[in-house]
Amino acid sequence: MDYDRYDRVRAVRWTGEALDLLDQRLLPHRQEHVLCRSSQAVAAAIHDLVVRGAPAIGIAAAWGLVLAAQQVEAGSGAQAAERLASAIDHLNAARPTAVNLAWALRRMRARLIGAGTDWRAQLQIEASAIEAEDLAANRHMGQLGAALIAPGSGVLTHCNTGSLATAGFGTALGVIRAGVAEGRVQRVFAGETRPWLQGARLTVWELLQDGIPATLIADAAAAHLMATGQVQWVIVGADRITANGDVANKIGTYQLAIAARHHGLKFMVVAPASTIDMHTATGAAIEIEERSADELLGYGGVRTVAEGVKAWNPVFDVTPAGLIDAIVTERGVVERPDAQRMRALFPD
Amino acid sequence: MDYDRYDRVRAVRWTGEALDLLDQRLLPHRQEHVLCRSSQAVAAAIHDLVVRGAPAIGIAAAWGLVLAAQQVEAGSGAQAAERLASAIDHLNAARPTAVNLAWALRRMRARLIGAGTDWRAQLQIEASAIEAEDLAANRHMGQLGAALIAPGSGVLTHCNTGSLATAGFGTALGVIRAGVAEGRVQRVFAGETRPWLQGARLTVWELLQDGIPATLIADAAAAHLMATGQVQWVIVGADRITANGDVANKIGTYQLAIAARHHGLKFMVVAPASTIDMHTATGAAIEIEERSADELLGYGGVRTVAEGVKAWNPVFDVTPAGLIDAIVTERGVVERPDAQRMRALFPD
Repeated sequence: MDYDRYDRVRAVRWTGEALDLLDQRLLPHRQEHVLCRSSQAVAAAIHDLVVRGAPAIGIAAAWGLVLAAQQVEAGSGAQAAERLASAIDHLNAARPTAVNLAWALRRMRARLIGAGTDWRAQLQIEASAIEAEDLAANRHMGQLGAALIAPGSGVLTHCNTGSLATAGFGTALGVIRAGVAEGRVQRVFAGETRPWLQGARLTVWELLQDGIPATLIADAAAAHLMATGQVQWVIVGADRITANGDVANKIGTYQLAIAARHHGLKFMVVAPASTIDMHTATGAAIEIEERSADELLGYGGVRTVAEGVKAWNPVFDVTPAGLIDAIVTERGVVERPDAQRMRALFPD
Repeated sequence: MDYDRYDRVRAVRWTGEALDLLDQRLLPHRQEHVLCRSSQAVAAAIHDLVVRGAPAIGIAAAWGLVLAAQQVEAGSGAQAAERLASAIDHLNAARPTAVNLAWALRRMRARLIGAGTDWRAQLQIEASAIEAEDLAANRHMGQLGAALIAPGSGVLTHCNTGSLATAGFGTALGVIRAGVAEGRVQRVFAGETRPWLQGARLTVWELLQDGIPATLIADAAAAHLMATGQVQWVIVGADRITANGDVANKIGTYQLAIAARHHGLKFMVVAPASTIDMHTATGAAIEIEERSADELLGYGGVRTVAEGVKAWNPVFDVTPAGLIDAIVTERGVVERPDAQRMRALFPD
């Protein structure tokens, strides 16, 4: 299946000497780029949401470490690993929930420790590999996930899990792209995803670049949409998946899973194996990131709420495994996930 | 119980010769008023959301007919009713879903037909009565609803059902006001209610005027909030309630009801008897108003979505009676509503 015509957007690009990030805060109105020349700049870009999406954050952090390496003296890989420890910590701290960030940095560090005096080149090779493997994983997950969808289906997605959130193609949006390419997906709906509006600003824009028409809905309209019979699958990404199959993802995911189950619809989570955290038993142990209440007090720079009003702004929630029909990874699909089925696919 | 200190806002006020409406499109930043001197101006204000909320729309329409009557020749009430038929039709058509609009106009028309040559005075008396009865009904519902809530509870509401949506005190927000006054409600959460942000712009503003602290959340955060154990009741208003207890209300209500049931929380609908439509068997027969997709493509003049994107903007949904624990009206409470229990309280 030729997926290229459905995969035209790139959010993270290594220029050879700097990391070029498409500034996602300005989409869809302006396509501007932030050029990061230091790991501090990359960490700030991750923190400030210039780049977002768990896999894209991991890739950006890997390149961030390549940039940090340019400031470190020659020596062995193990010596470099010590000298780069604070850069790794700083990148790790840029966002708390996404497990891919820590995963990518652990992988970079392991490569470093195993390297000789050519550790600078080894770091570049590793960052390239993380990026290339992500794109390949997404295309493979696209195939696996699309195979679960009956021809003529409608799908609803949440947040942005596309090329903008990954090395390319996307996770949940990759399954939708593959489903469209194969004629299985006929209707695509996207929730706007308050407060940061990733669905409204990014997902429908990204799909439009690839000629895939999508219909935007208010987050609160999802259950009503389900009741009309227009969607058969809810398909979302993940920021972290625990050993029992619980899924931390963008706030609102849990609500969609409850509504999907209520309507007898299917719920699919699509995420690379790097998102899976077999060291955390259940979702109850996940720290949920809360961002500034300010994000809820306005809309697109327009203040909408009276002075003196409090707001609560958790940006992730946990969907229990029991509400999930399939977790799709590049290693395979876990249907009706639980601890045993997760362990069968992820024994390590 | 002294409720006055929790009831300071008024949205609809008859000046003696014109209808003074607090322009709810400009809240919370500016408190400006639209003075309507004709029924056409009132119909336009209803259509354009200067005034909103089912009971407030009914009251405004009643005063709109009083204004229309100023343009009609002397004669009998029955003659006036004929001459005012097109004004009634025009007001009726201003919003399609709210049953209170038609109810208030039917009541005004009945008074007119029963009146002699003093029909102008009779219309004024009837409009005043509709308004005064609404306020009294809201205070009574506040008492009835609050009695269902255990002391120390947290509540979540949606949209705006307060003084701004009624003659005063509010329906769902009236129960919350009464619950706060009686020490039963300790935590108030309000969903922002995209796309028109009635929760963010109106509800938390209105509660702030009365010294009731409320916490704003994204609509998509409701289920996560429920999972944290901070709320025990979801309390909402209604635009129409059918003979079997199905409830049409602001988009997102249905989703909250599903999530509340999933968490074993209680779901209360608060609405005056004028909202109850015993001539419509079930919610399946309710026409759901869809407003312009533009409301989803941006906010406050700031466009957030790329050109060429489609959106779907249903502004109400239907919550089936089976998900509702109590319908509170000024005539009494229907617990676990169904057609039989509804008929017991509303036999006519």
